[in-house]
Amino acid sequence: MGGDLSPVEIVAGAKRASDELGIKVLLVGPPELVGDTLGLELFACSEVIGMDEDPAGGVRRKKDSSLVRSAELVRDGAACAMVSAGNTGATMGAALLRMGRIKGVHRPCIATPLPRPGAIPSVLVDAGANAECTPAMLLQFAQMAAAFSTARFATTNPSVGLLSIGEEPSKGTPLVKETHALLSSPDSGVNFFGNVEGRDLLGAEADVIVTDGFTGNVALKTMEGTLRFLLSTIFEVFGTNDETKAASNVLLPYLAPIAASLDPESAGGAMLLGLEGVCIISHGSSSATAMMNAIRVGHDLAAAGITDALREAVGAS
Amino acid sequence: MGGDLSPVEIVAGAKRASDELGIKVLLVGPPELVGDTLGLELFACSEVIGMDEDPAGGVRRKKDSSLVRSAELVRDGAACAMVSAGNTGATMGAALLRMGRIKGVHRPCIATPLPRPGAIPSVLVDAGANAECTPAMLLQFAQMAAAFSTARFATTNPSVGLLSIGEEPSKGTPLVKETHALLSSPDSGVNFFGNVEGRDLLGAEADVIVTDGFTGNVALKTMEGTLRFLLSTIFEVFGTNDETKAASNVLLPYLAPIAASLDPESAGGAMLLGLEGVCIISHGSSSATAMMNAIRVGHDLAAAGITDALREAVGAS
Repeated sequence: MGGDLSPVEIVAGAKRASDELGIKVLLVGPPELVGDTLGLELFACSEVIGMDEDPAGGVRRKKDSSLVRSAELVRDGAACAMVSAGNTGATMGAALLRMGRIKGVHRPCIATPLPRPGAIPSVLVDAGANAECTPAMLLQFAQMAAAFSTARFATTNPSVGLLSIGEEPSKGTPLVKETHALLSSPDSGVNFFGNVEGRDLLGAEADVIVTDGFTGNVALKTMEGTLRFLLSTIFEVFGTNDETKAASNVLLPYLAPIAASLDPESAGGAMLLGLEGVCIISHGSSSATAMMNAIRVGHDLAAAGITDALREAVGAS
Repeated sequence: MGGDLSPVEIVAGAKRASDELGIKVLLVGPPELVGDTLGLELFACSEVIGMDEDPAGGVRRKKDSSLVRSAELVRDGAACAMVSAGNTGATMGAALLRMGRIKGVHRPCIATPLPRPGAIPSVLVDAGANAECTPAMLLQFAQMAAAFSTARFATTNPSVGLLSIGEEPSKGTPLVKETHALLSSPDSGVNFFGNVEGRDLLGAEADVIVTDGFTGNVALKTMEGTLRFLLSTIFEVFGTNDETKAASNVLLPYLAPIAASLDPESAGGAMLLGLEGVCIISHGSSSATAMMNAIRVGHDLAAAGITDALREAVGAS
């Protein structure tokens, strides 16, 4: 039910996942709101948690909402993964409440792929689940995101960078400095790269970049806003006059793939790490293509045994 | 002495400020390292604090360094402002130690202009001076940055946004939530806009964006890195073949001014707010043009009585 383009694009994406990828997709929502299911199976429920609704209150009150029911379907083994383009906080709340945490995990976190054109994406963690973090939480985020990077992008011994404001271990907040010490320890269970800075986020050298959910969310949105601003400014210039339009027609076939590779939608969504089940958070503006990609990612990660891999990753600490 | 292009570009920029703007510029540095002063006056000293040197140790040990001497020249009234493209931490340390804080100021902070193409820049504060902040510090940063926005860009009653991870006052860290309450108070002395997000930083609606120095530095570098990455990728595409080169020649006259308007160098540098004297921090990669702009900004702000305005701004709290 979630996302700015729900339900038409969401259902269309689910249909494409079914037709093009052969993945069995179960829609969840109130039948009168979902409308045409394009022949897909619908698990009927009676409530929806709105995009701007208070997440905690919504999950608590709306026990027959599409989000809570989806999480129950994963918990009960009726689905291998849930995918949502809706209210991020409510998605996390429903998944946490119904699936439960992996034993030993302090807090679940959001792992978001960041584009590295010409190479596999890096992974930013935590992209916004936890505004307040401890060093022990950040260590687990790093361990889980490394396992995610391997399951998702087939990295071997992925490197983990710590987001800070300078390369030296002495730079940053007490949280960053203490996390640096934990990650540097030989029994951290991760391949620590060292500190990375904001300027390294796009096209990052490290395979995983770990930070608290406040900084991660600000950095991710700053990157998205900057890309969108610059691309829209450039496309405006292209339309200035007939001469610029003709010139841009020559360049667009070269520029379009780059713009697409930087598009957050192309990455197939973020994953909530640390739960006893797979939960994929797709961009709120998800198109049918983005939804199909997110469904593919959820399916493939479940098939690859991501939850076992995460369990093992935090067991190492 | 500072910056990646020192001393040639620095001296050339100083010469242009003298010739083109009629500003009297005093160079500070070891004569044998400065080399040709292009006829400008040189205040000779014997030491230099390196770009990668420990700031606190450098300022403490090197009492005859160009940074420490520059700060003394401002303190003693021999100069109306100091401008440095060198070691940022050491510049702050020297300025703080020799000029001293404005009475009542908890901590000095860095105010950095952010481009808003087609309009006056907004101001990001703190862009990196203080990794750890309290709500009282952020309130003062907001008050001082608003006074800076008015002195520098002639804003009237500039609006102040608080960087967070959602528009609601309930979003963010305890620091952000408590600062939200302080800024919302009728006696905050600032025109509070509300929370802003990372995606709003470029082309921001608010005239001032306040945050702690860790988040501010990460956001600023993420923005710079994203812009640089995207622009260099696009310019690479332009050179693909003869056809793309011809097309890009048509578009470059339109794109170049945009790229220039987003260039951090064009803004004329950041200012350290909260000291009994003017200190401008220019980009480490400063060219002669960037240095000339930074000198102009330092001169103009001193002439506009920025220190009195800052004193008044924090007195309002």
